[in-house]
Amino acid sequence: MRNLLLTISFDGTAYHGWQVQENAVTVQQTLQDALERICSRRDNVVGCSRTDAGVHANMYCCNIRTESAIACDKLVGALNAVLPRDIAALGCREADFDFHARYDCKSKEYIYKIWNSPNKNPFLYNYSLHYKYPLDEKFLSAQAQAFVGTHSFDSFCAAGSSVESTQRTVFAAEVEREGDMVIFRVEADGFLYNMVRIMTGTLIDISRGKIPADSIDAIIQAKNRFAAGHTAPARGLFLNKIYY
Amino acid sequence: MRNLLLTISFDGTAYHGWQVQENAVTVQQTLQDALERICSRRDNVVGCSRTDAGVHANMYCCNIRTESAIACDKLVGALNAVLPRDIAALGCREADFDFHARYDCKSKEYIYKIWNSPNKNPFLYNYSLHYKYPLDEKFLSAQAQAFVGTHSFDSFCAAGSSVESTQRTVFAAEVEREGDMVIFRVEADGFLYNMVRIMTGTLIDISRGKIPADSIDAIIQAKNRFAAGHTAPARGLFLNKIYY
Repeated sequence: MRNLLLTISFDGTAYHGWQVQENAVTVQQTLQDALERICSRRDNVVGCSRTDAGVHANMYCCNIRTESAIACDKLVGALNAVLPRDIAALGCREADFDFHARYDCKSKEYIYKIWNSPNKNPFLYNYSLHYKYPLDEKFLSAQAQAFVGTHSFDSFCAAGSSVESTQRTVFAAEVEREGDMVIFRVEADGFLYNMVRIMTGTLIDISRGKIPADSIDAIIQAKNRFAAGHTAPARGLFLNKIYY
Repeated sequence: MRNLLLTISFDGTAYHGWQVQENAVTVQQTLQDALERICSRRDNVVGCSRTDAGVHANMYCCNIRTESAIACDKLVGALNAVLPRDIAALGCREADFDFHARYDCKSKEYIYKIWNSPNKNPFLYNYSLHYKYPLDEKFLSAQAQAFVGTHSFDSFCAAGSSVESTQRTVFAAEVEREGDMVIFRVEADGFLYNMVRIMTGTLIDISRGKIPADSIDAIIQAKNRFAAGHTAPARGLFLNKIYY
């Protein structure tokens, strides 16, 4: 029995997130179907994270415990031939048998892309939020520093979701600009449901004056979803890096 | 009666090209429908170029002869609200009544994008050709210089298409690299059917040794479609600039 660490990337537009569910096409299901076609056996794939419908991944890791003897590089090539065009296998290597893609993850980095231009961009709709009014990335980056540290992020968790602990450690949070694209980048040891999307919505609400500047500390302290801003749409969100 | 010069951009993935046709969704039809909804009148839109199914436009110009009194900036905003997400209105201005988007075009620039990486990229499938083997952009740029000048481009015209003259003047042709993206850029006073896609296919065929280096002059002289390389797929092609 081997344990393979597989790295993929996917355009999440057409998928109802990572996790297998009934009556919806998911990335996990699509990947398991492709593996079954290649290895002639049904192996379960353990993902590093659940992702919402429409969320993308530049890098996503999963582990597969399998009795298949297929070589790692052959598996990558075969997957890219069998998988649909919106999922790519990037690499595969042997992992310790105990390795678990979710539990062993040390940190993850998400990016949220905001197309900050008065002009509509027909190529970016599924891959960013379009925000027409000027964003000051230096100001927003300074605001985002308040996310850094170990906090209970109840205010940045979708109402109604239940988790054992809402405490997470954010290692880095910054806002940068590449031309008309403003990118919010956040790395943490874990994320609550909708956490990055609510962080992004809050930064935008600060930018347009709906939430006062320098209030993220207070929003965190409030431990109340209604203290934070709106939830930005899934389509601008990318799981960007996974650290083990 | 006014004559409006409208500039748009579009993701051509979902469209059967620019021109209205029966039983297929086209950009022209979609634009005319949006204009009718806004102006409550059916005006014909004259485009600068026919484009193939799946071809994109970073910039596309058209003129609209209309009795509508709508202000140009209002029209742009209204179009962006009414048009689907894959077509954007970029600008609009009054033009001379005689102005014709196709006949008055001095030159056009197309770019063809080649994703030149061993890795599949799930975000670029509809917007590039994936070519896995190394491309030498400097070598290809030197090869492409043979396209420049006034030639009869029969060899670079889809077999079976009929035009009055196959003579076109290519003002510039170059290949450049931005990271893993190799871009073929060509500007001419006009293009024959599939011309840029056959030029691109020929450059790739030269790169992989299927066509000898330094043979583009001879291919042009042959005036025979079969002397040139394959037709690269539509999805990597972008109409990039229009000059009047």
